[in-house]
Amino acid sequence: MTRAQDYSQWYNDLIIKGDLADYSAVRGCMVIKPYGYALWENMQQTLDKMFKDTGHQNAYFPLFVPKSLFEAEEKNAEGFAKECAIVTHYRLKTDPNNKGKLMVDPEAKLEEELIVRPTSEAIIWNTYKTWIQSYRDLPILVNQWANVVRWEMRTRLFLRTAEFLWQEGHTAHATKEEAIEETKMILDLYADFAENWMAMPVIKGVKTPNERFAGAEDTYCIEALMQDGKALQAGTSHFLGQNFAKAFDVKFSDKSNQLDYVWATSWGVSTRLIGGLVMTHSDDQGLVLPPKIAPLQVVIVPIYKGEEQKALIDVKVKEFMQSFKAAGIRVKYDDSDNQRPGWKFAEYELKGVPVRIAIGARDLENNQVEIARRDTKEKSSVSMDGLTNTVSALLEAIQTNLFERAKQYRDEHITKADTWDEFVQILDTKAGFVSAHWDGSAESEDKIKELTKATIRCIPLNNTQEAGKCILTGNPSTQRVLFARAY
Amino acid sequence: MTRAQDYSQWYNDLIIKGDLADYSAVRGCMVIKPYGYALWENMQQTLDKMFKDTGHQNAYFPLFVPKSLFEAEEKNAEGFAKECAIVTHYRLKTDPNNKGKLMVDPEAKLEEELIVRPTSEAIIWNTYKTWIQSYRDLPILVNQWANVVRWEMRTRLFLRTAEFLWQEGHTAHATKEEAIEETKMILDLYADFAENWMAMPVIKGVKTPNERFAGAEDTYCIEALMQDGKALQAGTSHFLGQNFAKAFDVKFSDKSNQLDYVWATSWGVSTRLIGGLVMTHSDDQGLVLPPKIAPLQVVIVPIYKGEEQKALIDVKVKEFMQSFKAAGIRVKYDDSDNQRPGWKFAEYELKGVPVRIAIGARDLENNQVEIARRDTKEKSSVSMDGLTNTVSALLEAIQTNLFERAKQYRDEHITKADTWDEFVQILDTKAGFVSAHWDGSAESEDKIKELTKATIRCIPLNNTQEAGKCILTGNPSTQRVLFARAY
Repeated sequence: MTRAQDYSQWYNDLIIKGDLADYSAVRGCMVIKPYGYALWENMQQTLDKMFKDTGHQNAYFPLFVPKSLFEAEEKNAEGFAKECAIVTHYRLKTDPNNKGKLMVDPEAKLEEELIVRPTSEAIIWNTYKTWIQSYRDLPILVNQWANVVRWEMRTRLFLRTAEFLWQEGHTAHATKEEAIEETKMILDLYADFAENWMAMPVIKGVKTPNERFAGAEDTYCIEALMQDGKALQAGTSHFLGQNFAKAFDVKFSDKSNQLDYVWATSWGVSTRLIGGLVMTHSDDQGLVLPPKIAPLQVVIVPIYKGEEQKALIDVKVKEFMQSFKAAGIRVKYDDSDNQRPGWKFAEYELKGVPVRIAIGARDLENNQVEIARRDTKEKSSVSMDGLTNTVSALLEAIQTNLFERAKQYRDEHITKADTWDEFVQILDTKAGFVSAHWDGSAESEDKIKELTKATIRCIPLNNTQEAGKCILTGNPSTQRVLFARAY
Repeated sequence: MTRAQDYSQWYNDLIIKGDLADYSAVRGCMVIKPYGYALWENMQQTLDKMFKDTGHQNAYFPLFVPKSLFEAEEKNAEGFAKECAIVTHYRLKTDPNNKGKLMVDPEAKLEEELIVRPTSEAIIWNTYKTWIQSYRDLPILVNQWANVVRWEMRTRLFLRTAEFLWQEGHTAHATKEEAIEETKMILDLYADFAENWMAMPVIKGVKTPNERFAGAEDTYCIEALMQDGKALQAGTSHFLGQNFAKAFDVKFSDKSNQLDYVWATSWGVSTRLIGGLVMTHSDDQGLVLPPKIAPLQVVIVPIYKGEEQKALIDVKVKEFMQSFKAAGIRVKYDDSDNQRPGWKFAEYELKGVPVRIAIGARDLENNQVEIARRDTKEKSSVSMDGLTNTVSALLEAIQTNLFERAKQYRDEHITKADTWDEFVQILDTKAGFVSAHWDGSAESEDKIKELTKATIRCIPLNNTQEAGKCILTGNPSTQRVLFARAY
């Protein structure tokens, strides 16, 4: 299946064939396979270091939220109520009518139902209440790596699953300004990670009230563009104002001993990023992974006839492997003898390994190897002398190229529309982001969504202010916003 | 509260005061605070590297287990049925009789209930079924870091919580021998980690059938001894035979194209280890953490009058900090001015920081610092010259001392009993492990437990074979086993 034939099917197939994930027996939940999980670990480690370098610490809060806490912040509760997995019982018993089977024990009904966390503001702010008395206890800069559950009706591997893995930061501050600063700092951190590690260009912006996180005063986001012209919300950072502090009665005494509610932020990225990564770079031959986060950066494949040639190649490869590893390159020597080189080439292309090195008997004679880069599929013969430096430089070049290529595509797919017809035509033919005026009303936004399935992805930060007319209503507008159909 | 007054209360207080964890609003679930989580991260990273160095990869499987899968392996299901959190609904709705409140939507009842995983054999073996066809697909060496839920009636911070964090390894093999070898290799790995990182001596052994993991053919364990003479099961490694392969119909074709069921192991350690760590080393002044996994290894406290002295100390400390960090020492300079040195000393003692360095104006003149070690509370003045080496060596000495001290206590608390009176008296007065003959019957084991609350912790590996008489029945026995009261 190619991207041109059916982008959606291509994506699903690739996730499975590329060994990233698998369907499971649980509706909407997936199994993250070792190769996919290794990718997630690389992403996780990078982000974790970025969080710690900016003063955050990890902690862990309960999986379950008692219903009475869940409903305390009303907007948040309302936003998630329709997609909650709910624990009602705590025991199974033998089914008397069904030998060897179990049934829920009706006598083990919980007094209060527990919600499997769809997000953790409620349980965390209920805890912060006991941690915060004075300004000296602030700020609290905490992050959690966790699984969350949102009972989505339509699921897709990585992009939208009932259970997913994420990190959720939850910070508490003495002032509004400090909380907003944190929200924006994290947005920059996410954009840095997306662009400089995932090689996925993003637009930083703020959501309209319609698209805000339930319970937030402002939701900042990074928006990426997939190869089919659909947008993907890749990360969000919320300024929560004093909403959760009020819902959970979290006050602190400031330096002059005045009591005030605490200011909050929360922010998260999830395994959804892996979906975005796949849809940003991969091609009809398989995955294309950016070197910085690829589980495997280089694979070496020997090409030989007979054990004698193999032994000579082995000696040389052993040298390279040592040198590569010393340089921090993640490398594998695939000398398994149950598959032919051509099969291996296709396999590592499918897996998106950035650099493939082939070494044959003649290469040994000529003091060279054949290098193939995954992004452009170019092959070249290069000298064995200084191979580690050559490969390091190539990995950097691939990382840069992936970003530039994706950025060029993205930039070419931000199109201005000044009439409704233009707007609709761009969405239906070219796709991508459409930059258009909007009158700022929720009604217009809803109507546009209803008519075109396009949503306002964001109001870009530092947006140009210009007078114009709303694409739908013709009402006056002060700036363009970015519309797109989205995942 | 001291250990002598009330060991149990001392433990609970210390977990809270030492900032490791907090109670939560969810029955039996705890909040792991940043300091406790940093400790867990250090343990996790070490174990993770050990797993990867022995060929394992991480993956992630769903949180939920459909009831029909859960009950497939009958013994396993029976073992966990009574302590399962069960998801029955997937939506909340507005409560019409209770403004601002939510209720479970009766129309959103799941067709099949979902069990929140108490352990993942069922969901994983149902997945392995699709991954394994031939011997070429074996072995599968997978580990998962995850949260699990067991609805325990009596819970204690870290030691027994309804939700806990753990790793669970699940491997699949072509032969029985290979699976048993894996089980034992992991047991050795756990013992290595417990002794050489946590400084917690353990006895490696095998469980009696009574104490086996539900669904296992054999359960190997490491057993530690706490300061109050009670044992703690610190990790288990299970040889599962073909039980799960049969329950989930997982067969493979071997080299001669014969079909056979796959052989399995599973193994895990959890946040319970933190409870064991605390109860092995800590004292009445607070936590005592082994340097290798302590979040903070060294704290430096300045002692000064006036800004001028402070500035001189700062310059010197800055040098030390650089040198310490370059040597990989986790160090903090606490020059906060809102607490006096004495308060800080007590605080870092409470937190179990292995080494404290104090520097005053006179120390500067004398080119020395005062070093206090947490394990023995000894203080000494040492030269500033070569301080990094001095501290590195001291951290190693503390690590060794903690292990030796705990090992001496443990060894002194393995007592032979040859009569029932002796047996009971040792349990009631000296406590610890009691090494005694047992006739090998489940009935005797149950009876002993009923009479004394002591269980057979394990049959030590490479146990001495000697003829004797069962401590309870007088029936012939071929070896002593280790009894203890346990957490």
